Amino acid sequence: MLSKNEAKYIQSLYHKKNRDDTGLFIAEGPKLVEELLNSSFEIKKIYALKDWLINNATTVQVEEITQQELERISNQAGPNKTLAVVKQKKVKPPVLENRITLILDGIQDPGNLGTIIRVADWFGIDTIIASENTVDVYNPKVIQSTMGSICRVNVIYENIIALLKATKITKYGAVLNGAPVNGMNKIKEGILIIGNEGNGISKEVSSFINAAVTIPGKGNAESLNAAVATGILLSHLV
Amino acid sequence: MLSKNEAKYIQSLYHKKNRDDTGLFIAEGPKLVEELLNSSFEIKKIYALKDWLINNATTVQVEEITQQELERISNQAGPNKTLAVVKQKKVKPPVLENRITLILDGIQDPGNLGTIIRVADWFGIDTIIASENTVDVYNPKVIQSTMGSICRVNVIYENIIALLKATKITKYGAVLNGAPVNGMNKIKEGILIIGNEGNGISKEVSSFINAAVTIPGKGNAESLNAAVATGILLSHLV
Repeated sequence: MLSKNEAKYIQSLYHKKNRDDTGLFIAEGPKLVEELLNSSFEIKKIYALKDWLINNATTVQVEEITQQELERISNQAGPNKTLAVVKQKKVKPPVLENRITLILDGIQDPGNLGTIIRVADWFGIDTIIASENTVDVYNPKVIQSTMGSICRVNVIYENIIALLKATKITKYGAVLNGAPVNGMNKIKEGILIIGNEGNGISKEVSSFINAAVTIPGKGNAESLNAAVATGILLSHLV
Repeated sequence: MLSKNEAKYIQSLYHKKNRDDTGLFIAEGPKLVEELLNSSFEIKKIYALKDWLINNATTVQVEEITQQELERISNQAGPNKTLAVVKQKKVKPPVLENRITLILDGIQDPGNLGTIIRVADWFGIDTIIASENTVDVYNPKVIQSTMGSICRVNVIYENIIALLKATKITKYGAVLNGAPVNGMNKIKEGILIIGNEGNGISKEVSSFINAAVTIPGKGNAESLNAAVATGILLSHLV
């Protein structure tokens, strides 16, 4: 039986401060938990219904819980069989040479960050550098919306101004009057900067862009969703 | 002062059944409400804080409400100055010739539908045909996430099987083993079919695809988000 204290401790991990203090995060559902089990993430403990435990042998510490207990500790509208407490990964400083790296300048919406991670994974990009004011990658909504891509894409929080200052690699950024992205050549190396949902790329970060690109449109929408823009840019550049 | 009954009536419009019965829907926030005022939508009544009313002259019926009253009738985490009760639009049967039309086969997530409407607007597509099991376009989460694009893109619910059967226009659909979309020519006419988030394009609808396309990827993500895929496909085809 799940103790009151253990339930409380799991629920506490839905708050960033407690995730930071403990270095842990929560992931839910068979698909995500099974992908994490087969990844370089270290799982601290799995809580699962009998029906999941029967089908999944693991050396990780597990606890059988009831549907009612799962509902108590879950953050999902429809809790699904299993929930894992996972250790956050210590990621090495990023290598920028000979690869394409995404830099996020203040993405705020957890769903957008999760979807951007999934898009990066689709195009084989394994490193995302996020500004310090970007939403926490270990936010449960981010983790769930990566659909498992969190296992293959590292997200590193950095002072992106200092990082951009220190590298000579070409910096691509989507702006209103850049070169049409559908006329550009594919690239093997570069940094692609994605701006905040409401304000785009910040003024200070913009000054580092040396390859301004635009997604041609002909309608009246003011902007594209950040994850959609990332997908379109990568589909033309990678 | 906002009466209890009027507040109840507004809240009732957050449920599809009541929207269907009354032919009304709710839109919130200055940007969206002001775009709707300048669109072909007919607004039944606007509820707004004094500060918005001072700056917006309109012939539409308005009622000044307090922040507390706005919070009571709002569906948003952070209610923003104004809320409108809007009449649903009667849309004419779609014309498919000489244009690109999106067909949605069972999109379930309101945020995805809203973002797809925004993407369509970006690329100048003014008609989306949704299968009858697609989420309701007048769902408040859909309306808000269109960011105003609902004013320029018509969403029509139809029996898409019957519609696909009746037209000879080329039907593009994203599948796993299609032609790479980045090698395709731009099109002036066509139907682009977007599938459900979890299951893709249904079997019955798939049988109508006569131009199978694929978004090349090199990572391990199983799929792309439906709105991201729509954006990538349109950026190559339009």
